[in-house]
Amino acid sequence: GGVLLYSSYSGKVDAAQKCSNLDTSTFMAEPITELRILEENSEDMKTKMELLILRIQSEFCRALEQEDGKQAKFTVDRWRRHNPNEGGGITCVLQDTETFEKAGVNITVMSAPLSKQLQASMRARGKELPEDKQFTFFAAGISSVIHPRNPHVPTIHFNYRYFEMQDEDGKNKHWWFGGGTDLTPYYLDEDDVKHFHSVLKSACDRHDPQYYPNYKKWCDDYFHIQYRGERRGIGGIFFDDLEADNAGGVFNFVKDCAEAVIPSYIPLVKKHKKDAVSEAERRWQLLRRGRYVEFNLVYDRGTKFGFATPNARIESILMSLPLQARWEYMHKPEPGSPEFKITEVLKNPREWV
Amino acid sequence: GGVLLYSSYSGKVDAAQKCSNLDTSTFMAEPITELRILEENSEDMKTKMELLILRIQSEFCRALEQEDGKQAKFTVDRWRRHNPNEGGGITCVLQDTETFEKAGVNITVMSAPLSKQLQASMRARGKELPEDKQFTFFAAGISSVIHPRNPHVPTIHFNYRYFEMQDEDGKNKHWWFGGGTDLTPYYLDEDDVKHFHSVLKSACDRHDPQYYPNYKKWCDDYFHIQYRGERRGIGGIFFDDLEADNAGGVFNFVKDCAEAVIPSYIPLVKKHKKDAVSEAERRWQLLRRGRYVEFNLVYDRGTKFGFATPNARIESILMSLPLQARWEYMHKPEPGSPEFKITEVLKNPREWV
Repeated sequence: GGVLLYSSYSGKVDAAQKCSNLDTSTFMAEPITELRILEENSEDMKTKMELLILRIQSEFCRALEQEDGKQAKFTVDRWRRHNPNEGGGITCVLQDTETFEKAGVNITVMSAPLSKQLQASMRARGKELPEDKQFTFFAAGISSVIHPRNPHVPTIHFNYRYFEMQDEDGKNKHWWFGGGTDLTPYYLDEDDVKHFHSVLKSACDRHDPQYYPNYKKWCDDYFHIQYRGERRGIGGIFFDDLEADNAGGVFNFVKDCAEAVIPSYIPLVKKHKKDAVSEAERRWQLLRRGRYVEFNLVYDRGTKFGFATPNARIESILMSLPLQARWEYMHKPEPGSPEFKITEVLKNPREWV
Repeated sequence: GGVLLYSSYSGKVDAAQKCSNLDTSTFMAEPITELRILEENSEDMKTKMELLILRIQSEFCRALEQEDGKQAKFTVDRWRRHNPNEGGGITCVLQDTETFEKAGVNITVMSAPLSKQLQASMRARGKELPEDKQFTFFAAGISSVIHPRNPHVPTIHFNYRYFEMQDEDGKNKHWWFGGGTDLTPYYLDEDDVKHFHSVLKSACDRHDPQYYPNYKKWCDDYFHIQYRGERRGIGGIFFDDLEADNAGGVFNFVKDCAEAVIPSYIPLVKKHKKDAVSEAERRWQLLRRGRYVEFNLVYDRGTKFGFATPNARIESILMSLPLQARWEYMHKPEPGSPEFKITEVLKNPREWV
């Protein structure tokens, strides 16, 4: 595997099988790219990103397992693309456990020829890709959605990704990072929301004081169910096409954001996972999960990209959908009720820190 | 109301208020268009279609109520567009009753200026609409999705609609009909499927022997979840852009199709509504309802048209979504099981009559 991913090494598949010095024992599964290639390219951003998302995946999965009582263990699916030279992924899922209804943490490391259609859409996004060249893209990313059982524990989503693109001669190279973390509570606990946004803001502020305000707004704008006039949740941060002269600096920012996931979220799980729950609260949670499904199927870019990618691994994309969801005709919460309060925030995003 | 709908009558709003001879007592609610206008234009296709869908709505709702034990009654919402001159609709919903988890039967009668974007998309569909003209469209349609409680009773969907389009001078007039009826069983009962298709075929055969084979195939092609490689259900009929020299003939075909809904479906409700149900069967039904949600949010043209229409009545569009749905990671039915059997048919559509 990994042949296309590191094209300069495509001739070395039969090279010496030296023993690895890379410690992969804490990862959920072996890396997607061959260890030898990772080691020989330890300073390559592709390597650094693959090792980062492997580590973040494992740390987050272990932290979630710890919040689940009865020795819950993630199911680990290591899979390859239809064409195994194009890479694959590791999908970790926890389903119907004590604390979580559905928790999915997926990493993908892939490289494939860029279709003419995607080439055009990249150009529309401002990438300079000469028409007469054939491009290959590389993508490494982690994506996760956690749907807890207790309606007082919010759903979290995060996604951090690195893209590279170059033509057949290894020229016209482009690279960028994208990502974000956002929270979808079913009930509004202002302390929770402030805690969540503060942790994200600290991660951002270490790099640029403009990052948090800019990416907070981008997040509110992106997670918007337009036909309902409401946001999916109370936001967080979201960014795309992030590049700079100093790739290492951008990588460190993305790393800090990814490392902020556990401290931003796990305390909320701890705090609320044993809260008392009424039937009405459970029903409200299921209705809001219906809205989550609506956003993901109608708007989410990653999901649409997946639907449009030939031989995409649909189950790894749609692991974001909740175990259960509900739609009632014309459901409207009582004015003044806790259910009403959260919908007001979804209609009018606020500043939290 | 109804001013825009019958533009030649727009000057007669203050005309004499004569008593109506139209019997509307059996409808779920008063027509959307003023009775006077309907009566003065009794031979106009707009009138004929509005009265047809009002009658079909009421007959179908009454037939469904009869299958529900405890004096279940549809909730009737008569609503108008944001701009009331543009018409409105009647949405009838039965929710969480003994026989039905969610049953929605909606009619819409509306007329509005055709946006430049929709004008372009109509042109792409082959309609000749001169660029320099401003068009108004009229649409009257009935749309229904019935999600029964018992997994052995299939879900049915049907939709019959009439479109008219003309420029500001009342010229460049276009009209067409579209529609279809399709069935989504959770378990395969071949007798049920044959019965359903036979009733549709009889309705088609009375008009043209090519209709059933053509529209059966169109239905299989349309209700296709491409990224899953499966159909939403076992098909039925589907057609669009249906026009002919003889508008009355096309109307009669659409009328026959709409009248075939009750005999095609109600016998299946009667036959299975009291079938024994296991927990595993219920879970399977919820998983398949997840697929129904996927098709409707990702592919369904009517839903997408609704999302793209400013001030659309979203709750009337999304009444098609089930009360509950479920997504399990990598769920695959046991080979040879009844759950497996239906998925084989969804992957490989068959001929039934």
